[in-house]
Amino acid sequence: MKIGLDIMGGDFAPKAIVLGAIEAQKELSSDQNLVLIGDKDQAHSIIKQAGANPDLFEYVHTTETIGMNEHPTKAITHKPNASISLGFQLLKEGKLDSFASAGNTGAMLVGAMFSVKSIPNLNRPAIASNIPKEKSGYGILLDVGANADCKAETLVQFAVLGSLFAEHIYNIPNPKVGLINLGEEEEKGNNLTHAAYPLFKEKKGINFIGNIEGRDLFNDKADVMVCDGFVGNIMLKLAESFHNLVEERNFKDDFFDRFNYEQYGGSPILGVNAPVIIGHGISSPEAIKNMILLSRLMIESKITDKIRAAFN
Amino acid sequence: MKIGLDIMGGDFAPKAIVLGAIEAQKELSSDQNLVLIGDKDQAHSIIKQAGANPDLFEYVHTTETIGMNEHPTKAITHKPNASISLGFQLLKEGKLDSFASAGNTGAMLVGAMFSVKSIPNLNRPAIASNIPKEKSGYGILLDVGANADCKAETLVQFAVLGSLFAEHIYNIPNPKVGLINLGEEEEKGNNLTHAAYPLFKEKKGINFIGNIEGRDLFNDKADVMVCDGFVGNIMLKLAESFHNLVEERNFKDDFFDRFNYEQYGGSPILGVNAPVIIGHGISSPEAIKNMILLSRLMIESKITDKIRAAFN
Repeated sequence: MKIGLDIMGGDFAPKAIVLGAIEAQKELSSDQNLVLIGDKDQAHSIIKQAGANPDLFEYVHTTETIGMNEHPTKAITHKPNASISLGFQLLKEGKLDSFASAGNTGAMLVGAMFSVKSIPNLNRPAIASNIPKEKSGYGILLDVGANADCKAETLVQFAVLGSLFAEHIYNIPNPKVGLINLGEEEEKGNNLTHAAYPLFKEKKGINFIGNIEGRDLFNDKADVMVCDGFVGNIMLKLAESFHNLVEERNFKDDFFDRFNYEQYGGSPILGVNAPVIIGHGISSPEAIKNMILLSRLMIESKITDKIRAAFN
Repeated sequence: MKIGLDIMGGDFAPKAIVLGAIEAQKELSSDQNLVLIGDKDQAHSIIKQAGANPDLFEYVHTTETIGMNEHPTKAITHKPNASISLGFQLLKEGKLDSFASAGNTGAMLVGAMFSVKSIPNLNRPAIASNIPKEKSGYGILLDVGANADCKAETLVQFAVLGSLFAEHIYNIPNPKVGLINLGEEEEKGNNLTHAAYPLFKEKKGINFIGNIEGRDLFNDKADVMVCDGFVGNIMLKLAESFHNLVEERNFKDDFFDRFNYEQYGGSPILGVNAPVIIGHGISSPEAIKNMILLSRLMIESKITDKIRAAFN
């Protein structure tokens, strides 16, 4: 197993990324290899400074990077030797089994679409985010930003993607699917949810429990929470800001601790032909470590094959 | 001045409503009269039990009510003697200067549209919600549920409505207007915000500061935060649920205290030809008192005239 990691992406790269890789490596078995993509010299020096052994990692050397504010499509097209571009090239060639980066989100999305591509019969991949549930465990919110405008059929496909992820990654049997809406009743909604509701009801293989509201994000009503990427992005950023408000006040609590993005392991792009994970720009070593372990879990669970089979 | 109040609407009606009216009445001057619409006998008995004087109020007696789950249009049409229907009838006839209820939100919206009606040249009225800002003071979020689908031009009109409310009710000079979006950059967004952005930029008389994100709801970037009613409703309910999570944990803090819906005074419907306020279903006496005082402020500030003038 080869787990690909861009060490040049993220606000604290490469140091935070390499330190996270060192921690993750301790939990990997001997046939699970971490491939660090980026400046090998810098990586070596960080690893040695940390008292670890550089030989425990594989390397793909490059010093070219894609900045956080670069135009995604232009950057991917014009910088074939950037760490993100190389990662996707290797993923496409089967030389990596997964690829993760805390760098430019748009470049990660474009790179995935251009290289390993969307799986057959899927309208659009989605970016999924882990959501801590108040009582315990996690749910999944999607899409959180890959698709600002969606068709009703696309939302149904997101429900399938999210259900498979919840089942095989979070081990939630028969995960409950909720359609995010402004009211619980079937007749409530906007044009999109009005069109989507009957399609969700008809769709076999998902456990649709009806509409859920903004207040249901953290409760147990639904495990898989579906919306377009515009709504999901706004909900996620609002939730993050609220978490920050609580954290700034030093309010400690199990639920708010679990809210910590560091534990998420990043946001997977669901619906492309390989495990791809986007990390938070401010990723700490702990966050990177969890992103690597989520990469391993996505490979081991064969989630990509299961998604492909569901759309076959 | 005649301030109309439905005493039959809300989860704890009539008791919580009448108790709130008693508290508000203490702050009204002799020419500011509270008109209680609903069961006069019950009102009398609650007022006497509270040791107050029933003669300090005016009454419009009815025992008919509109339930929280009744179909709004049907209820308004078929129950002309329900407290909400009577309130709007009196508002239309000029026998009230404002009308407020913590009852059925949809019936309040339909009642306002059928009776005092939308102001000329406005596409659609909006429901506005008070948002506490972290540092101090309040902002306004609109629409929070009256219009699930909006045209770009309608969002621009919401910006005008919200700016006038922020200026004349919150006394914020030249209030900053933000368009809620999934990114800050002008080119980010969905079809709606792509169409709206240039219209916001061109619009004279508003202080447009650009896109704002979900994380900006509580900070000082914008005083007036504009989105369609689908997004606004989901944001508002998500924020309320987060406030509840904090409250359940007994976390005390000035910001989270100000987040208390009881201090809001309810959500005004902006863009109809009279001050109309919808209270939270779970309104306590404190919330009702503040809704009455907001009613007075909306009358005194002549906000309706100012809105009509802006669209003339």
